[in-house]
Amino acid sequence: MTWISSLASQFQLSLLVTTTTESENAPVVLTGVLLSLVIIYLASKLGGELSKRLNFPPVLGELVSGVVIGVSALHLLMFSESGAQASDSAIMSVLQFIFDLSPDSVTSIFHSQSEVISVLAELGVIILLFEIGLESDLRQLKEVGYQATIVAVVGVSVPFTAGTIGLMMLFHVPVIPAIFAGAALTATSIGITSKVLSELGRLKSKEGQIIVGAAVIDDVLGIIVLAVVASLAKTGEVDILNVVYLIFSASIFLLGSILLGKFFNKTFVAIADKLQTRGQLVIPALIFAFFMAFIANAIHLEAILGAFAAGLVLDETDKRKELDQQVVPIADILVPIFFVAVGARADLGVLNPTNADNQTGLIIAIFLIVVAIVGKVVTGWTVFGQPQLNRLAIGVGMIPRGEVGLVFAGIGSASGVLDKPLEAAIITMVILTTFLAPPLLRFAFKGELVEDKPTVEQADLERELQKQ
Amino acid sequence: MTWISSLASQFQLSLLVTTTTESENAPVVLTGVLLSLVIIYLASKLGGELSKRLNFPPVLGELVSGVVIGVSALHLLMFSESGAQASDSAIMSVLQFIFDLSPDSVTSIFHSQSEVISVLAELGVIILLFEIGLESDLRQLKEVGYQATIVAVVGVSVPFTAGTIGLMMLFHVPVIPAIFAGAALTATSIGITSKVLSELGRLKSKEGQIIVGAAVIDDVLGIIVLAVVASLAKTGEVDILNVVYLIFSASIFLLGSILLGKFFNKTFVAIADKLQTRGQLVIPALIFAFFMAFIANAIHLEAILGAFAAGLVLDETDKRKELDQQVVPIADILVPIFFVAVGARADLGVLNPTNADNQTGLIIAIFLIVVAIVGKVVTGWTVFGQPQLNRLAIGVGMIPRGEVGLVFAGIGSASGVLDKPLEAAIITMVILTTFLAPPLLRFAFKGELVEDKPTVEQADLERELQKQ
Repeated sequence: MTWISSLASQFQLSLLVTTTTESENAPVVLTGVLLSLVIIYLASKLGGELSKRLNFPPVLGELVSGVVIGVSALHLLMFSESGAQASDSAIMSVLQFIFDLSPDSVTSIFHSQSEVISVLAELGVIILLFEIGLESDLRQLKEVGYQATIVAVVGVSVPFTAGTIGLMMLFHVPVIPAIFAGAALTATSIGITSKVLSELGRLKSKEGQIIVGAAVIDDVLGIIVLAVVASLAKTGEVDILNVVYLIFSASIFLLGSILLGKFFNKTFVAIADKLQTRGQLVIPALIFAFFMAFIANAIHLEAILGAFAAGLVLDETDKRKELDQQVVPIADILVPIFFVAVGARADLGVLNPTNADNQTGLIIAIFLIVVAIVGKVVTGWTVFGQPQLNRLAIGVGMIPRGEVGLVFAGIGSASGVLDKPLEAAIITMVILTTFLAPPLLRFAFKGELVEDKPTVEQADLERELQKQ
Repeated sequence: MTWISSLASQFQLSLLVTTTTESENAPVVLTGVLLSLVIIYLASKLGGELSKRLNFPPVLGELVSGVVIGVSALHLLMFSESGAQASDSAIMSVLQFIFDLSPDSVTSIFHSQSEVISVLAELGVIILLFEIGLESDLRQLKEVGYQATIVAVVGVSVPFTAGTIGLMMLFHVPVIPAIFAGAALTATSIGITSKVLSELGRLKSKEGQIIVGAAVIDDVLGIIVLAVVASLAKTGEVDILNVVYLIFSASIFLLGSILLGKFFNKTFVAIADKLQTRGQLVIPALIFAFFMAFIANAIHLEAILGAFAAGLVLDETDKRKELDQQVVPIADILVPIFFVAVGARADLGVLNPTNADNQTGLIIAIFLIVVAIVGKVVTGWTVFGQPQLNRLAIGVGMIPRGEVGLVFAGIGSASGVLDKPLEAAIITMVILTTFLAPPLLRFAFKGELVEDKPTVEQADLERELQKQ
């Protein structure tokens, strides 16, 4: 079989477009990315469909199938940034077998491949928030702005206070780690929440818009909390200037993009109407969305906020329906990468009670989970003047911590503030709130009629009828 | 401004999902990718629209706009695999300014960002060939199979023989470099040719199908020629086993996937019909396309051949039309990345006559370009028994060398076989054939009526009429 390997090493070059040796691995990286995407899509469809048949939201199935193929089980989808080695990844073993790679090449290819999948996942959540923005109604969002702000502020302050004080009183955790854990309790995963709402056909309901609005504000508050906590962890002091800068830039950004929207709407339609080549609608839209995401990132906010704002602005145009239709397949291929990757990164090893660190961690975790759920559920009852609202649904919609919660755990662990048990407890809390929220949200909305948009089956039926 | 930098270094962490320091750069990589995509899309739309107004195919404009933003001019889109440094990239300077990065971080971020854009470009050409496969008619392709094979074989052997012998006789080039340059003359860029045909509405014409068929066979022949030349460059001998293996695996793969198609067609439709969650058509289709591309790569063929075969197979199903519609926006956002990247990588510096290497190179280049054009144009007249054919168009359609030609130059340079002038001559030949082919092809088809599909304007008109 040596001729196959000699052929293989020769043909690492076969897709080469350039001259340096650094690029010799490029075709293998592509092979790895293709195999990863095949596995991600297979997992997302298997998980999503199974979840749907069991009457859960499909996104829960995507998360769980991510866990199955990720670091917790099959080791197919691994991420080098999470500290995994190339030898841990089953996909890398396949590539190694096919292409007979040197250990150095394997490490570099593994790194590149996991970087590419990570960025694709990030682009997925950016497109998701752009789509959610397109489907959200700016006018309705303004109407519920007041309630959403209250929900967000209560949903940040209650879990933060209860978590921090509880950890200090009950578990004698020192003040800085306690504040860190409290901060991790404040997050709301706008991605998971909005996806579930969309799948339940509830995104445009009053409850849905309050949840989305509150989740957006929560994301901004989360960034500010993170700034405070990170500077506390680093220097032991709070950098007031940072906090002021963040509050200021976030407000300017969100209000600015809404105001800009009024002008930009017409310009956008005029430009799209003038273009004559393929992609004349979707490319200008993505230029705008990615530019807003870039600006958000550049002023130290999250990219998804920019994409959401871009979607809100373009929602106001005549082209909205056509654009919506064209964004659907793009979202269909990118968004599952995000959810499967979130699942694949969640290390369920922290739930293993035979590990001593985990035992202490699990007890703290139970406390954190109770605070996490109760602290968000109460927010539903802070909305006043709206007797007809499903308050439980609003509170439950704020529960999932998702990727935002993991950010806190990641920074805490990197800065050395958190000890192993507390870190494991935070990760457990994040995983459980994330996985519990979709079925709980479905339960909270149960019995009510679906209002806004047809389910996939209904859409299919309509299409069939049109054909006849 | 120091507080901004301290904030910046803190907030490199802000999108972190994991724990190791390696991942600290992840959010900056995303920022860089977002900015690159905004620039790529802006350039592709500006170039494409301008080209269209000047009555050239839009893809020519995308290539030229790639040159403008790439290594030859503005240095916005740079690739680390091409040997560029982070300090050469204008995008990296912007990121450096915003995030106040350390030199190590800049290098690592530049590398990651250019890797991500490269893979996105590769996914772009994979989706393009999948789309071309979907739009091609397998039955018609079989009908022209004989003619396409002749066109491909003549289009490989004539330029190879004329180029190699000419270089040895006229320019006294030694035999191995001459063979290498001759081999670079054999390539046909299936991506560029098929895109231009599609833009001219000629993909489904008899000429179009012969060109696409011949370009596919040419791609397979090119891989075999490359294997021969690469082993010749390495060991001075030809590895017969490699060549037999490649001919064998390529034939099995292409015929196998067509046969498989007959069975898989119905299974695919049955699966897509059963799925109930979003993306029920496009995700199974992409699983199939990416899997075929992976298999092609794994047996040392090009990924795009697998994607083309997958498109051909799915073209035969009832779902074809619906699938076609959904692939359009995906292609719209990925394909321009490929063409702009091809342009950005082409270093027009080799055309600068004030450089001594280039002077000798340019003279050889003129010879290579003549052989490159004449050697392919003659192929049109080898098609027999088809009196009505536009023979000039077939020959012209085979001219662009594109990325495939650059592969040869890249490997030749890496293996030390080519000296500077010959390398520059090959790159010049590749660039010019690539850029000349779209307008020449348009000219060759001029005066004939467009047959197969409506142009963008016609489609818009029809849509307008439907609205009323």
